[in-house]
Amino acid sequence: MEQSGIQNIVIVGAGNVGTHLIEAFLQTEYHILQVVTQSSGSAERITESYGIPATSSAKEMISVADLYLLSVPDHSLPEVVQEMNFHHRLVAHTSGSVGMEVLLKASENHGVFYPLQTFTRNKPLDFLSIPVCIEANTPENGVALAGVAAALSDHVVFLDSGQRRVLHIAAVFACNFVNHMYHIAANILEENKLPFDLLLPLIKETADKAGHGHPSALQTGPALRNDMDVIDKHNHYLERFPGYKKLYNLITKNIVKEFKAKKRNGQL
Amino acid sequence: MEQSGIQNIVIVGAGNVGTHLIEAFLQTEYHILQVVTQSSGSAERITESYGIPATSSAKEMISVADLYLLSVPDHSLPEVVQEMNFHHRLVAHTSGSVGMEVLLKASENHGVFYPLQTFTRNKPLDFLSIPVCIEANTPENGVALAGVAAALSDHVVFLDSGQRRVLHIAAVFACNFVNHMYHIAANILEENKLPFDLLLPLIKETADKAGHGHPSALQTGPALRNDMDVIDKHNHYLERFPGYKKLYNLITKNIVKEFKAKKRNGQL
Repeated sequence: MEQSGIQNIVIVGAGNVGTHLIEAFLQTEYHILQVVTQSSGSAERITESYGIPATSSAKEMISVADLYLLSVPDHSLPEVVQEMNFHHRLVAHTSGSVGMEVLLKASENHGVFYPLQTFTRNKPLDFLSIPVCIEANTPENGVALAGVAAALSDHVVFLDSGQRRVLHIAAVFACNFVNHMYHIAANILEENKLPFDLLLPLIKETADKAGHGHPSALQTGPALRNDMDVIDKHNHYLERFPGYKKLYNLITKNIVKEFKAKKRNGQL
Repeated sequence: MEQSGIQNIVIVGAGNVGTHLIEAFLQTEYHILQVVTQSSGSAERITESYGIPATSSAKEMISVADLYLLSVPDHSLPEVVQEMNFHHRLVAHTSGSVGMEVLLKASENHGVFYPLQTFTRNKPLDFLSIPVCIEANTPENGVALAGVAAALSDHVVFLDSGQRRVLHIAAVFACNFVNHMYHIAANILEENKLPFDLLLPLIKETADKAGHGHPSALQTGPALRNDMDVIDKHNHYLERFPGYKKLYNLITKNIVKEFKAKKRNGQL
Protein backbone atom coordinates (compact mmCIF):
# COMPACT_ATOMS: atom_id res chain seq x y z
CA MET A 1 0.00 0.00 0.00
CA GLU A 2 1.40 3.38 -1.07
CA GLN A 3 0.71 5.70 1.89
CA SER A 4 2.08 8.83 0.33
CA GLY A 5 -0.54 8.38 -2.35
CA ILE A 6 -3.45 9.34 -0.08
CA GLN A 7 -6.29 10.86 -2.07
CA ASN A 8 -9.57 9.47 -0.80
CA ILE A 9 -10.68 9.92 2.79
CA VAL A 10 -13.58 8.54 4.81
CA ILE A 11 -14.47 10.53 7.90
CA VAL A 12 -16.16 8.63 10.72
CA GLY A 13 -18.04 10.95 13.08
CA ALA A 14 -19.63 14.29 12.25
CA GLY A 15 -19.59 16.13 15.56
CA ASN A 16 -17.76 19.43 16.04
CA VAL A 17 -14.36 18.05 15.04
CA GLY A 18 -15.65 15.95 12.15
CA THR A 19 -17.68 18.81 10.69
CA HIS A 20 -14.75 21.23 10.85
CA LEU A 21 -12.52 18.59 9.22
CA ILE A 22 -15.03 18.15 6.39
CA GLU A 23 -15.11 21.89 5.79
CA ALA A 24 -11.32 22.10 5.87
CA PHE A 25 -10.79 19.18 3.45
CA LEU A 26 -13.29 20.70 1.02
CA GLN A 27 -10.74 23.50 0.53
CA THR A 28 -8.03 21.01 -0.48
CA GLU A 29 -7.25 18.52 -3.26
CA TYR A 30 -8.29 15.65 -1.00
CA HIS A 31 -11.51 13.87 -1.82
CA ILE A 32 -13.95 12.97 0.95
CA LEU A 33 -15.40 9.69 -0.31
CA GLN A 34 -17.94 9.34 2.46
CA VAL A 35 -18.90 10.44 5.95
CA VAL A 36 -20.10 7.83 8.44
CA THR A 37 -22.34 9.31 11.14
CA GLN A 38 -24.13 8.13 14.26
CA SER A 39 -27.67 8.79 13.05
CA SER A 40 -29.45 8.84 9.70
CA GLY A 41 -30.52 12.42 10.49
CA SER A 42 -26.97 13.68 10.64
CA ALA A 43 -26.07 11.65 7.53
CA GLU A 44 -28.82 13.51 5.67
CA ARG A 45 -27.59 16.83 7.05
CA ILE A 46 -24.05 16.12 5.80
CA THR A 47 -25.22 15.20 2.29
CA GLU A 48 -27.52 18.23 2.12
CA SER A 49 -24.91 20.66 3.45
CA TYR A 50 -21.83 19.44 1.62
CA GLY A 51 -23.02 17.15 -1.19
CA ILE A 52 -20.96 14.30 0.27
CA PRO A 53 -22.27 10.71 0.43
CA ALA A 54 -23.02 9.83 4.04
CA THR A 55 -24.36 6.83 5.90
CA SER A 56 -25.17 5.89 9.46
CA SER A 57 -24.60 2.19 8.81
CA ALA A 58 -21.14 0.80 9.57
CA LYS A 59 -21.75 -1.98 7.06
CA GLU A 60 -22.20 0.52 4.24
CA MET A 61 -18.80 2.09 4.87
CA ILE A 62 -16.79 2.25 1.66
CA SER A 63 -13.84 -0.15 1.83
CA VAL A 64 -11.41 1.50 -0.60
CA ALA A 65 -10.47 4.76 1.11
CA ASP A 66 -6.78 5.57 1.55
CA LEU A 67 -7.38 7.02 5.00
CA TYR A 68 -10.09 6.58 7.64
CA LEU A 69 -10.25 9.48 10.09
CA LEU A 70 -12.12 8.66 13.30
CA SER A 71 -13.51 11.80 14.92
CA VAL A 72 -15.81 10.03 17.37
CA PRO A 73 -16.07 10.53 21.15
CA ASP A 74 -13.10 9.06 23.04
CA HIS A 75 -15.20 6.39 24.72
CA SER A 76 -16.62 5.21 21.36
CA LEU A 77 -13.21 4.42 19.87
CA PRO A 78 -12.95 0.81 21.16
CA GLU A 79 -16.43 0.06 19.83
CA VAL A 80 -15.69 1.60 16.42
CA VAL A 81 -12.50 -0.45 16.18
CA GLN A 82 -14.36 -3.63 17.03
CA GLU A 83 -17.34 -3.08 14.74
CA MET A 84 -15.76 -1.64 11.63
CA ASN A 85 -13.58 -3.27 9.03
CA PHE A 86 -10.86 -0.97 7.72
CA HIS A 87 -9.39 -3.48 5.27
CA HIS A 88 -5.78 -2.89 6.39
CA ARG A 89 -5.95 0.72 5.25
CA LEU A 90 -4.52 3.65 7.19
CA VAL A 91 -6.72 4.57 10.19
CA ALA A 92 -6.18 7.55 12.50
CA HIS A 93 -8.15 8.95 15.41
CA THR A 94 -8.37 12.66 16.28
CA SER A 95 -8.34 12.48 20.08
CA GLY A 96 -5.99 14.34 22.39
CA SER A 97 -6.27 12.02 25.34
CA VAL A 98 -6.48 8.51 23.85
CA GLY A 99 -3.26 6.66 23.07
CA MET A 100 -2.50 5.36 19.59
CA GLU A 101 -2.67 1.75 20.81
CA VAL A 102 -6.47 1.81 20.80
CA LEU A 103 -6.14 1.34 17.02
CA LEU A 104 -3.89 -1.75 17.19
CA LYS A 105 -6.72 -4.04 16.15
CA ALA A 106 -8.21 -1.61 13.65
CA SER A 107 -5.44 -1.97 11.09
CA GLU A 108 -1.73 -2.65 10.90
CA ASN A 109 -1.49 0.89 9.50
CA HIS A 110 -2.61 3.38 12.10
CA GLY A 111 -1.86 6.66 13.76
CA VAL A 112 -3.20 9.84 15.33
CA PHE A 113 -4.28 13.08 13.67
CA TYR A 114 -5.06 15.50 16.52
CA PRO A 115 -5.97 19.09 15.65
CA LEU A 116 -5.39 21.16 18.79
CA GLN A 117 -8.33 23.53 18.80
CA THR A 118 -11.71 24.17 20.40
CA PHE A 119 -14.31 23.51 17.75
CA THR A 120 -17.63 25.29 17.97
CA ARG A 121 -20.49 24.38 15.70
CA ASN A 122 -21.32 27.10 13.15
CA LYS A 123 -18.25 29.18 13.99
CA PRO A 124 -15.81 29.11 11.06
CA LEU A 125 -12.13 28.59 11.84
CA ASP A 126 -8.88 29.35 10.11
CA PHE A 127 -7.53 25.80 10.01
CA LEU A 128 -4.15 26.98 8.71
CA SER A 129 -3.05 28.21 12.13
CA ILE A 130 -4.21 25.11 14.05
CA PRO A 131 -1.41 22.76 15.17
CA VAL A 132 -2.06 19.23 13.92
CA CYS A 133 -0.27 16.66 16.08
CA ILE A 134 0.74 13.49 14.26
CA GLU A 135 1.75 10.06 15.55
CA ALA A 136 1.95 6.84 13.54
CA ASN A 137 2.98 3.21 13.97
CA THR A 138 5.57 3.39 11.16
CA PRO A 139 7.65 6.23 9.67
CA GLU A 140 5.82 5.75 6.35
CA ASN A 141 2.42 6.16 7.95
CA GLY A 142 3.77 9.19 9.80
CA VAL A 143 4.87 10.82 6.57
CA ALA A 144 1.52 10.02 4.97
CA LEU A 145 -0.48 11.57 7.84
CA ALA A 146 1.83 14.59 8.00
CA GLY A 147 1.30 15.12 4.28
CA VAL A 148 -2.47 15.22 4.77
CA ALA A 149 -2.11 17.51 7.80
CA ALA A 150 0.13 19.89 5.84
CA ALA A 151 -2.67 20.43 3.33
CA LEU A 152 -4.85 21.80 6.14
CA SER A 153 -2.39 23.50 8.45
CA ASP A 154 0.92 25.35 8.57
CA HIS A 155 1.70 23.76 11.94
CA VAL A 156 2.29 20.02 11.72
CA VAL A 157 4.11 18.46 14.68
CA PHE A 158 5.04 14.90 15.60
CA LEU A 159 4.10 14.00 19.19
CA ASP A 160 3.91 10.60 20.82
CA SER A 161 0.90 9.52 22.91
CA GLY A 162 2.51 10.65 26.18
CA GLN A 163 3.34 14.11 24.86
CA ARG A 164 -0.11 14.44 23.35
CA ARG A 165 -1.74 13.56 26.66
CA VAL A 166 0.30 16.23 28.43
CA LEU A 167 -0.58 18.75 25.73
CA HIS A 168 -4.23 17.87 26.17
CA ILE A 169 -4.05 18.50 29.93
CA ALA A 170 -2.39 21.88 29.29
CA ALA A 171 -5.15 22.62 26.75
CA VAL A 172 -7.84 21.84 29.35
CA PHE A 173 -6.35 24.58 31.55
CA ALA A 174 -5.75 27.05 28.69
CA CYS A 175 -9.14 26.54 27.04
CA ASN A 176 -11.85 24.71 29.02
CA PHE A 177 -10.89 26.19 32.39
CA VAL A 178 -10.34 29.63 30.86
CA ASN A 179 -13.85 29.44 29.42
CA HIS A 180 -15.13 28.55 32.87
CA MET A 181 -13.49 31.72 34.22
CA TYR A 182 -15.37 33.65 31.52
CA HIS A 183 -18.53 31.84 32.61
CA ILE A 184 -18.07 32.88 36.24
CA ALA A 185 -17.37 36.47 35.19
CA ALA A 186 -20.54 36.42 33.06
CA ASN A 187 -22.63 35.13 35.96
CA ILE A 188 -21.26 37.76 38.36
CA LEU A 189 -22.04 40.52 35.87
CA GLU A 190 -25.49 39.12 35.08
CA GLU A 191 -26.42 39.19 38.75
CA ASN A 192 -25.73 42.89 38.63
CA LYS A 193 -27.34 43.52 35.23
CA LEU A 194 -23.99 44.52 33.72
CA PRO A 195 -23.26 43.40 30.14
CA PHE A 196 -20.60 40.72 29.59
CA ASP A 197 -19.47 42.64 26.51
CA LEU A 198 -17.70 45.12 28.79
CA LEU A 199 -15.08 42.42 29.38
CA LEU A 200 -14.40 41.51 25.75
CA PRO A 201 -11.51 43.95 25.13
CA LEU A 202 -9.88 42.74 28.37
CA ILE A 203 -10.39 39.08 27.40
CA LYS A 204 -8.92 39.70 23.96
CA GLU A 205 -5.88 41.56 25.30
CA THR A 206 -5.21 38.92 27.99
CA ALA A 207 -5.13 36.23 25.28
CA ASP A 208 -3.12 38.44 22.95
CA LYS A 209 -0.38 39.14 25.46
CA ALA A 210 0.06 35.40 26.11
CA GLY A 211 2.16 35.38 22.95
CA HIS A 212 4.43 38.13 24.28
CA GLY A 213 6.26 36.39 27.12
CA HIS A 214 5.92 33.76 29.82
CA PRO A 215 2.50 34.05 31.51
CA SER A 216 4.16 34.28 34.93
CA ALA A 217 5.87 37.49 33.84
CA LEU A 218 2.59 38.94 32.55
CA GLN A 219 0.48 38.39 35.66
CA THR A 220 -1.31 41.46 37.05
CA GLY A 221 -4.00 42.05 39.66
CA PRO A 222 -4.59 41.97 43.44
CA ALA A 223 -3.31 38.40 43.99
CA LEU A 224 0.04 39.19 42.37
CA ARG A 225 0.34 42.29 44.55
CA ASN A 226 -0.85 40.22 47.54
CA ASP A 227 -3.24 43.13 48.12
CA MET A 228 -5.22 41.84 51.11
CA ASP A 229 -7.48 44.90 51.23
CA VAL A 230 -8.86 44.15 47.77
CA ILE A 231 -8.85 40.36 48.27
CA ASP A 232 -10.87 40.76 51.49
CA LYS A 233 -13.40 43.01 49.75
CA HIS A 234 -13.76 40.49 46.94
CA ASN A 235 -14.27 37.69 49.46
CA HIS A 236 -16.97 39.69 51.17
CA TYR A 237 -18.80 40.19 47.88
CA LEU A 238 -18.40 36.54 46.85
CA GLU A 239 -20.25 35.33 49.99
CA ARG A 240 -23.29 35.01 47.74
CA PHE A 241 -21.44 32.60 45.40
CA PRO A 242 -19.83 30.04 47.78
CA GLY A 243 -18.45 27.91 44.90
CA TYR A 244 -16.84 30.90 43.23
CA LYS A 245 -15.45 32.14 46.54
CA LYS A 246 -13.69 28.83 47.16
CA LEU A 247 -12.23 28.92 43.65
CA TYR A 248 -11.25 32.60 44.01
CA ASN A 249 -9.28 31.84 47.15
CA LEU A 250 -7.57 28.72 45.80
CA ILE A 251 -6.41 30.49 42.63
CA THR A 252 -5.40 33.58 44.61
CA LYS A 253 -3.38 31.39 46.99
CA ASN A 254 -1.60 29.77 44.03
CA ILE A 255 -0.76 33.13 42.46
CA VAL A 256 0.52 34.52 45.78
CA LYS A 257 2.67 31.40 46.24
CA GLU A 258 4.20 31.68 42.79
CA PHE A 259 4.80 35.39 43.34
CA LYS A 260 6.66 34.64 46.57
CA ALA A 261 8.74 31.94 44.86
CA LYS A 262 9.72 34.39 42.12
CA LYS A 263 10.62 37.02 44.70
CA ARG A 264 12.80 34.48 46.55
CA ASN A 265 14.55 33.60 43.30
CA GLY A 266 15.24 37.27 42.61
CA GLN A 267 13.04 37.37 39.52
CA LEU A 268 10.97 40.25 40.90
CA MET B 1 -15.06 76.40 37.48
CA GLU B 2 -16.05 75.40 33.96
CA GLN B 3 -15.67 71.60 33.89
CA SER B 4 -16.50 71.09 30.25
CA GLY B 5 -13.52 73.31 29.54
CA ILE B 6 -10.93 70.70 30.52
CA GLN B 7 -7.71 71.18 28.60
CA ASN B 8 -4.80 70.74 30.96
CA ILE B 9 -4.21 67.50 32.85
CA VAL B 10 -1.78 66.47 35.57
CA ILE B 11 -1.21 62.73 35.88
CA VAL B 12 -0.12 61.46 39.31
CA GLY B 13 1.56 58.05 39.07
CA ALA B 14 3.51 56.62 36.16
CA GLY B 15 3.12 52.86 36.56
CA ASN B 16 1.53 50.67 33.89
CA VAL B 17 -1.79 52.55 33.89
CA GLY B 18 -0.25 56.03 34.13
CA THR B 19 2.20 55.36 31.32
CA HIS B 20 -0.51 54.02 29.01
CA LEU B 21 -2.67 57.08 29.84
CA ILE B 22 0.20 59.41 28.98
CA GLU B 23 0.67 57.69 25.62
CA ALA B 24 -3.05 57.77 24.92
CA PHE B 25 -3.44 61.48 25.80
CA LEU B 26 -0.49 62.37 23.57
CA GLN B 27 -2.70 61.29 20.63
CA THR B 28 -5.41 63.79 21.64
CA GLU B 29 -5.94 67.54 21.92
CA TYR B 30 -5.51 67.34 25.69
CA HIS B 31 -2.38 68.83 27.16
CA ILE B 32 -0.47 66.95 29.85
CA LEU B 33 0.88 69.78 31.98
CA GLN B 34 2.93 67.56 34.26
CA VAL B 35 3.43 64.03 35.53
CA VAL B 36 4.02 63.46 39.25
CA THR B 37 5.94 60.27 39.95
CA GLN B 38 7.11 58.32 42.98
CA SER B 39 10.85 58.64 42.28
CA SER B 40 13.11 61.15 40.60
CA GLY B 41 14.33 58.33 38.35
CA SER B 42 10.93 57.73 36.86
CA ALA B 43 10.34 61.49 36.59
CA GLU B 44 13.49 61.71 34.46
CA ARG B 45 12.36 58.75 32.39
CA ILE B 46 9.00 60.42 31.68
CA THR B 47 10.61 63.69 30.60
CA GLU B 48 13.14 61.89 28.42
CA SER B 49 10.59 59.57 26.80
CA TYR B 50 7.73 61.98 26.27
CA GLY B 51 9.11 65.50 26.69
CA ILE B 52 6.64 66.17 29.50
CA PRO B 53 7.62 68.06 32.68
CA ALA B 54 7.74 65.61 35.57
CA THR B 55 8.51 65.80 39.27
CA SER B 56 8.69 63.42 42.20
CA SER B 57 7.92 66.16 44.69
CA ALA B 58 4.29 66.63 45.71
CA LYS B 59 5.04 70.25 46.60
CA GLU B 60 6.11 71.01 43.05
CA MET B 61 2.83 69.82 41.62
CA ILE B 62 1.32 72.46 39.33
CA SER B 63 -1.81 73.97 40.89
CA VAL B 64 -3.68 75.14 37.79
CA ALA B 65 -4.59 71.90 35.98
CA ASP B 66 -8.22 71.36 35.01
CA LEU B 67 -8.02 67.68 35.92
CA TYR B 68 -5.80 65.61 38.22
CA LEU B 69 -5.79 61.92 37.32
CA LEU B 70 -4.50 59.67 40.12
CA SER B 71 -3.12 56.41 38.74
CA VAL B 72 -1.37 55.30 41.92
CA PRO B 73 -1.65 51.94 43.73
CA ASP B 74 -4.99 51.52 45.54
CA HIS B 75 -3.41 51.57 48.98
CA SER B 76 -1.60 54.85 48.23
CA LEU B 77 -4.79 56.80 47.47
CA PRO B 78 -5.54 57.89 51.07
CA GLU B 79 -1.97 59.15 51.46
CA VAL B 80 -2.04 61.04 48.15
CA VAL B 81 -5.33 62.67 49.16
CA GLN B 82 -3.88 63.72 52.49
CA GLU B 83 -0.56 65.02 51.21
CA MET B 84 -1.51 66.80 48.00
CA ASN B 85 -3.39 70.02 47.48
CA PHE B 86 -5.67 69.94 44.47
CA HIS B 87 -6.95 73.50 44.85
CA HIS B 88 -10.64 72.52 44.46
CA ARG B 89 -9.99 71.30 40.92
CA LEU B 90 -11.46 68.10 39.43
CA VAL B 91 -9.68 64.99 40.77
CA ALA B 92 -10.32 61.41 39.61
CA HIS B 93 -8.71 58.09 40.46
CA THR B 94 -8.32 55.18 38.02
CA SER B 95 -8.94 52.25 40.35
CA GLY B 96 -11.45 49.45 39.80
CA SER B 97 -11.80 48.43 43.40
CA VAL B 98 -11.67 51.68 45.38
CA GLY B 99 -14.87 53.65 45.93
CA MET B 100 -15.20 57.27 44.88
CA GLU B 101 -15.52 58.40 48.49
CA VAL B 102 -11.77 58.09 49.03
CA LEU B 103 -11.55 61.43 47.19
CA LEU B 104 -14.06 63.27 49.43
CA LYS B 105 -11.29 65.25 51.11
CA ALA B 106 -9.24 65.72 47.94
CA SER B 107 -11.60 68.20 46.35
CA GLU B 108 -15.29 69.05 46.21
CA ASN B 109 -15.01 68.12 42.51
CA HIS B 110 -14.12 64.45 42.18
CA GLY B 111 -14.84 61.24 40.37
CA VAL B 112 -13.48 58.02 38.93
CA PHE B 113 -11.91 57.35 35.54
CA TYR B 114 -11.39 53.57 35.34
CA PRO B 115 -10.07 52.09 32.11
CA LEU B 116 -10.93 48.38 32.15
CA GLN B 117 -7.85 46.73 30.71
CA THR B 118 -4.72 44.82 31.64
CA PHE B 119 -1.81 47.15 31.06
CA THR B 120 1.57 45.67 30.26
CA ARG B 121 4.66 47.82 30.14
CA ASN B 122 6.09 48.19 26.61
CA LYS B 123 3.10 46.50 24.96
CA PRO B 124 1.15 49.11 22.95
CA LEU B 125 -2.64 49.08 23.25
CA ASP B 126 -5.51 50.28 21.13
CA PHE B 127 -7.12 52.55 23.72
CA LEU B 128 -10.16 53.19 21.49
CA SER B 129 -11.65 49.77 22.31
CA ILE B 130 -11.05 49.97 26.08
CA PRO B 131 -14.17 50.65 28.17
CA VAL B 132 -13.62 53.69 30.38
CA CYS B 133 -15.92 53.62 33.42
CA ILE B 134 -16.90 57.01 34.79
CA GLU B 135 -18.36 58.08 38.11
CA ALA B 136 -18.54 61.60 39.51
CA ASN B 137 -19.90 63.47 42.51
CA THR B 138 -22.00 65.82 40.35
CA PRO B 139 -23.61 65.51 36.90
CA GLU B 140 -21.37 68.33 35.66
CA ASN B 141 -18.20 66.55 36.78
CA GLY B 142 -19.55 63.35 35.19
CA VAL B 143 -20.02 65.10 31.86
CA ALA B 144 -16.55 66.60 32.10
CA LEU B 145 -14.88 63.23 32.82
CA ALA B 146 -16.93 61.49 30.13
CA GLY B 147 -15.81 64.12 27.65
CA VAL B 148 -12.17 63.41 28.44
CA ALA B 149 -12.79 59.64 28.27
CA ALA B 150 -14.50 59.99 24.89
CA ALA B 151 -11.32 61.48 23.45
CA LEU B 152 -9.49 58.24 24.30
CA SER B 153 -12.12 55.56 23.87
CA ASP B 154 -15.24 54.63 21.93
CA HIS B 155 -16.66 52.91 25.04
CA VAL B 156 -17.50 55.33 27.83
CA VAL B 157 -19.88 54.00 30.48
CA PHE B 158 -21.22 55.43 33.73
CA LEU B 159 -20.92 53.01 36.65
CA ASP B 160 -21.27 53.68 40.36
CA SER B 161 -18.71 52.41 42.89
CA GLY B 162 -20.69 49.23 43.63
CA GLN B 163 -21.02 48.32 39.94
CA ARG B 164 -17.37 49.08 39.35
CA ARG B 165 -16.34 46.81 42.22
CA VAL B 166 -18.41 43.96 40.76
CA LEU B 167 -16.93 44.59 37.32
CA HIS B 168 -13.47 44.47 38.86
CA ILE B 169 -14.16 41.08 40.47
CA ALA B 170 -15.44 39.74 37.14
CA ALA B 171 -12.28 41.13 35.51
CA VAL B 172 -10.09 39.28 38.03
CA PHE B 173 -11.68 36.01 36.87
CA ALA B 174 -11.63 36.91 33.16
CA CYS B 175 -8.07 38.27 33.13
CA ASN B 176 -5.86 37.54 36.16
CA PHE B 177 -7.21 34.04 36.76
CA VAL B 178 -7.24 33.29 33.03
CA ASN B 179 -3.59 34.28 32.88
CA HIS B 180 -2.91 31.93 35.79
CA MET B 181 -4.50 29.10 33.76
CA TYR B 182 -2.07 29.99 30.94
CA HIS B 183 0.73 29.94 33.51
CA ILE B 184 -0.19 26.44 34.69
CA ALA B 185 -0.43 25.22 31.09
CA ALA B 186 3.00 26.70 30.37
CA ASN B 187 4.51 24.96 33.41
CA ILE B 188 3.00 21.59 32.47
CA LEU B 189 4.36 21.91 28.94
CA GLU B 190 7.77 23.10 30.15
CA GLU B 191 8.13 20.03 32.35
CA ASN B 192 7.75 18.00 29.18
CA LYS B 193 9.91 20.23 26.98
CA LEU B 194 6.93 21.13 24.79
CA PRO B 195 6.68 24.72 23.52
CA PHE B 196 3.93 26.96 24.95
CA ASP B 197 3.44 28.42 21.46
CA LEU B 198 1.53 25.25 20.51
CA LEU B 199 -1.35 26.58 22.62
CA LEU B 200 -1.52 30.08 21.17
CA PRO B 201 -4.08 29.37 18.41
CA LEU B 202 -6.27 27.61 20.99
CA ILE B 203 -5.91 30.50 23.45
CA LYS B 204 -6.78 33.01 20.74
CA GLU B 205 -9.85 31.07 19.56
CA THR B 206 -11.11 30.53 23.13
CA ALA B 207 -10.99 34.29 23.72
CA ASP B 208 -12.44 35.03 20.30
CA LYS B 209 -15.47 32.80 20.76
CA ALA B 210 -16.28 34.53 24.08
CA GLY B 211 -17.86 37.24 21.96
CA HIS B 212 -20.09 34.71 20.16
CA GLY B 213 -22.48 33.60 22.90
CA HIS B 214 -22.77 32.96 26.63
CA PRO B 215 -19.63 31.15 27.88
CA SER B 216 -21.78 28.40 29.41
CA ALA B 217 -23.06 27.51 25.92
CA LEU B 218 -19.51 27.47 24.53
CA GLN B 219 -17.96 25.11 27.08
CA THR B 220 -16.17 22.04 25.69
CA GLY B 221 -13.86 19.37 27.13
CA PRO B 222 -13.88 16.35 29.45
CA ALA B 223 -15.50 18.12 32.43
CA LEU B 224 -18.49 19.21 30.35
CA ARG B 225 -18.88 15.65 29.07
CA ASN B 226 -18.34 14.39 32.63
CA ASP B 227 -15.84 12.01 30.99
CA MET B 228 -14.45 10.21 34.05
CA ASP B 229 -11.99 8.14 32.00
CA VAL B 230 -10.16 11.25 30.83
CA ILE B 231 -10.55 13.08 34.15
CA ASP B 232 -9.02 10.09 36.00
CA LYS B 233 -6.09 9.95 33.57
CA HIS B 234 -5.49 13.68 34.06
CA ASN B 235 -5.59 13.24 37.83
CA HIS B 236 -3.06 10.49 37.61
CA TYR B 237 -0.71 12.70 35.61
CA LEU B 238 -1.22 15.70 37.89
CA GLU B 239 0.02 13.76 40.96
CA ARG B 240 3.33 15.51 40.38
CA PHE B 241 1.68 18.95 40.68
CA PRO B 242 -0.48 18.69 43.86
CA GLY B 243 -1.55 22.35 43.72
CA TYR B 244 -2.64 22.06 40.10
CA LYS B 245 -4.43 18.78 40.78
CA LYS B 246 -6.51 20.36 43.53
CA LEU B 247 -7.41 23.24 41.22
CA TYR B 248 -8.13 20.87 38.32
CA ASN B 249 -10.63 18.95 40.43
CA LEU B 250 -12.32 22.01 41.90
CA ILE B 251 -12.86 23.61 38.48
CA THR B 252 -13.92 20.28 36.98
CA LYS B 253 -16.44 19.82 39.79
CA ASN B 254 -17.86 23.28 39.13
CA ILE B 255 -18.20 22.64 35.40
CA VAL B 256 -19.84 19.25 35.99
CA LYS B 257 -22.27 20.89 38.43
CA GLU B 258 -23.23 23.60 35.99
CA PHE B 259 -23.61 21.04 33.23
CA LYS B 260 -26.01 19.03 35.39
CA ALA B 261 -28.01 22.13 36.27
CA LYS B 262 -28.36 22.97 32.58
CA LYS B 263 -29.43 19.42 31.80
CA ARG B 264 -32.04 19.59 34.58
CA ASN B 265 -33.35 22.85 33.15
CA GLY B 266 -33.64 21.28 29.71
CA GLN B 267 -30.97 23.54 28.20
CA LEU B 268 -28.93 20.56 26.98
